[in-house]
Amino acid sequence: MTQKTAAIDRVSVIGLGSMGHGIARSLIRARFTVVGCDPNPDAAARFAQEGGLVTSTPAEATTDARLVISAVLDGKQTADVLFGSEGCAKVLDQGAVFVSVATMAPNEGRALAERLASQGIYYLDAPVSGGAERAADGTLTILVSGPAEAIDIASPVFAVLGQRVFELGTAVGDASAFKIINQLLAGIHIAAACEAIAFAAAQRLDLSKVYDIIKSSAGNSWMFENRVPHILANDYSPRSATDIFVKDLGIVLDMARTARAPVPLASAALQLFLMTSAAGMGRDDDASIARLYAQIMRIKMPASPNPQTSHEIG
Amino acid sequence: MTQKTAAIDRVSVIGLGSMGHGIARSLIRARFTVVGCDPNPDAAARFAQEGGLVTSTPAEATTDARLVISAVLDGKQTADVLFGSEGCAKVLDQGAVFVSVATMAPNEGRALAERLASQGIYYLDAPVSGGAERAADGTLTILVSGPAEAIDIASPVFAVLGQRVFELGTAVGDASAFKIINQLLAGIHIAAACEAIAFAAAQRLDLSKVYDIIKSSAGNSWMFENRVPHILANDYSPRSATDIFVKDLGIVLDMARTARAPVPLASAALQLFLMTSAAGMGRDDDASIARLYAQIMRIKMPASPNPQTSHEIG
Repeated sequence: MTQKTAAIDRVSVIGLGSMGHGIARSLIRARFTVVGCDPNPDAAARFAQEGGLVTSTPAEATTDARLVISAVLDGKQTADVLFGSEGCAKVLDQGAVFVSVATMAPNEGRALAERLASQGIYYLDAPVSGGAERAADGTLTILVSGPAEAIDIASPVFAVLGQRVFELGTAVGDASAFKIINQLLAGIHIAAACEAIAFAAAQRLDLSKVYDIIKSSAGNSWMFENRVPHILANDYSPRSATDIFVKDLGIVLDMARTARAPVPLASAALQLFLMTSAAGMGRDDDASIARLYAQIMRIKMPASPNPQTSHEIG
Repeated sequence: MTQKTAAIDRVSVIGLGSMGHGIARSLIRARFTVVGCDPNPDAAARFAQEGGLVTSTPAEATTDARLVISAVLDGKQTADVLFGSEGCAKVLDQGAVFVSVATMAPNEGRALAERLASQGIYYLDAPVSGGAERAADGTLTILVSGPAEAIDIASPVFAVLGQRVFELGTAVGDASAFKIINQLLAGIHIAAACEAIAFAAAQRLDLSKVYDIIKSSAGNSWMFENRVPHILANDYSPRSATDIFVKDLGIVLDMARTARAPVPLASAALQLFLMTSAAGMGRDDDASIARLYAQIMRIKMPASPNPQTSHEIG
């Protein structure tokens, strides 16, 4: 067996934030050697403590790498990881597989894949759903599209990271397109949950009862169940930040305009995330839309304030 | 034991449409004597065939009744059932319990309850969630508020009709307020599901795969799971009609304006139901918003047309 066809036992992880950190942990637990980097020294130190090999740049982290997982914020950061001055495209060998899990527009991933293909490097479009907790548990939903031989190489790693892996064909961008549909719905449902709870508070209803009733009624959503407890606890420390949906619904709106597809609810939801970000809560939990409503209507949400929560508008 | 304190063994059901018919069936199955009426002769005939006692008017159906369930469309029809020329308020005895399951604004129910209270007749505010199928199965979610002694009398009947019964205090209108929160979310989620599927179709994605992926992702909702199969089958025969949400989101918007509570997503969703109704699909299934999008964008949804579906715009 040559080095190229042996099973992968080492993975490079670029970006050790909430998603990358969880992915690295799952891989370490499954006995992979994990080489990583992150510009944030705290994230890098946490990774080292957990048994990862810390490097300083994407180029260092991926020297001799056969499989790279890039877990940064968006398409722009992914382009920088690949083609920036310390990027990994210049050090990766022919046949290496670069897996991007960031949520980005399909055409962004396609452009990156084309540049890499000219060097004989594979790009896999592999956005994930499930958040930081499920990344660390190895129970993500993974959507993947790209060259079949690259998916074969990455499959054992996807099996470690994901509870469900949807293979969506050989065209880079297709997996991202499916992910964007999910983000359209997720963003609207968060904003709807916040609108419903704030409206219920304005009607002076018992919000815990609202939560219990909706959970067993036709008005329920995954996001309602997941986010409303943050509102009931008045805890807006970020599990997923408002600005993530400013980005993701921004992608939806750009794609929709290009496709001449009207998306009025996604458009209205984006404005609510923007308002919440404009009010200083962009880095707080995305359920902060409810807090914005409460502040605008000068109504009290049920619980006492959480000292972790720093952003308030006057 | 006097007649007044004996267990209820006969129930009057006013309105034998999809909800009233299901309720009547559940009661007949549980060996109640059920007396009903409906202006639609087909609905009345179906009820007679299933063992119900048909009468011609609410007054006839409720003579000597101790428990009445009114399952008509809205507050206006409920007022007519009670106080119209053939209404039951004039024949009901003191101590009788009138249960309204229609979705209406809280203040509509309160006004009806006050008029009945002056005659010594109880009004229970008891909106339900779950649709026609769960009404027939006896697995509704029932929200109820009103005088405790009236809830005691009606409880054995609620136990037959509902899988979950939420008792929400003694004030008529409170149960309706909770129901309206559910309708706000349900309406937005139906419109969001249609927007997402139409946007996915515009991106030429495989819609069955979209459905499978979203069901196991954070973008899921009860309504997405329930309504998208109608779109995939291109079957818009009404399980719940577009005009129901024109009504229910109209109530949301009225209440929100009175309360000075902004509800931008509910407002946008109402416009989509209105557009769909304006295009001739008001009596079709509420997933028809997706069909409107497909028609506007001149894209084909996946399956072949269903001959039951009669309304199309040019």
